[in-house]
Amino acid sequence: MSCVFCDIVAGEAPAIRVYEDDDFLAFLDIRPFSRGHTLVVPKRHSVDLTDTPPDTVAGLARIGQRIAQAARRSGLHADGNNVVINDGKAAFQTVFHIHLHVLPRRSGDKLSFAKNMVLRRDPGREESGRLLREALSELDTTP
Amino acid sequence: MSCVFCDIVAGEAPAIRVYEDDDFLAFLDIRPFSRGHTLVVPKRHSVDLTDTPPDTVAGLARIGQRIAQAARRSGLHADGNNVVINDGKAAFQTVFHIHLHVLPRRSGDKLSFAKNMVLRRDPGREESGRLLREALSELDTTP
Repeated sequence: MSCVFCDIVAGEAPAIRVYEDDDFLAFLDIRPFSRGHTLVVPKRHSVDLTDTPPDTVAGLARIGQRIAQAARRSGLHADGNNVVINDGKAAFQTVFHIHLHVLPRRSGDKLSFAKNMVLRRDPGREESGRLLREALSELDTTP
Repeated sequence: MSCVFCDIVAGEAPAIRVYEDDDFLAFLDIRPFSRGHTLVVPKRHSVDLTDTPPDTVAGLARIGQRIAQAARRSGLHADGNNVVINDGKAAFQTVFHIHLHVLPRRSGDKLSFAKNMVLRRDPGREESGRLLREALSELDTTP
């Protein structure tokens, strides 16, 4: 069975990458709820919280925290983040390769956030990715 | 400054407890979005993803996964779960002691879920807690 996230991990489908290590990849959601909306996935395919090893779930959370911290410090100027795993179709999971969402939020963004839940686009995606990557590398040098 | 989750951890405020170990406590949200809506907190106070140690965030995720698995197997008959950390006021965090939400979901519950986002009550809270505790202890014996 084909899996779009496995294709992205393999470099066979395009994505704006934000973070990568041996076991995980983070990239921008192509239908973002907010600027910098990032997905973190394990490179090894698993479906949801029923079959993903606990160490992998913990790893997703660690990287999600790092990206959330970066979003606050970044040129996206996030004031907070929703960090979410949708576990199963009943919980709105749509791609069945487990992923953790990081949704950068800004104070008073409720209206634009609601609008984006419909529109789900970011005309400045390349810049959003660049700003997150920059902030992540700054976090690495100034912990 | 007083903190209601620190009070719950200390046993000075009531809660329906679902899980506890040396470092973490899980209990039912008093204003649930769905039956079995559980909060996992570290016993040691921290505010959000900016000040919580990465190992603690990883621990929240591990326990959240376990509770999500239990909710599926439990008498709550969850078909999935939303697992969420709201990091900061801009992201709807309302209690400033970091917590991870586990929201058990059922197939086709969109309407009742939306209703519960307004009502936020579970008349069978004690039973919801019992069902989750039972399923967690079953998970421990049949991995």
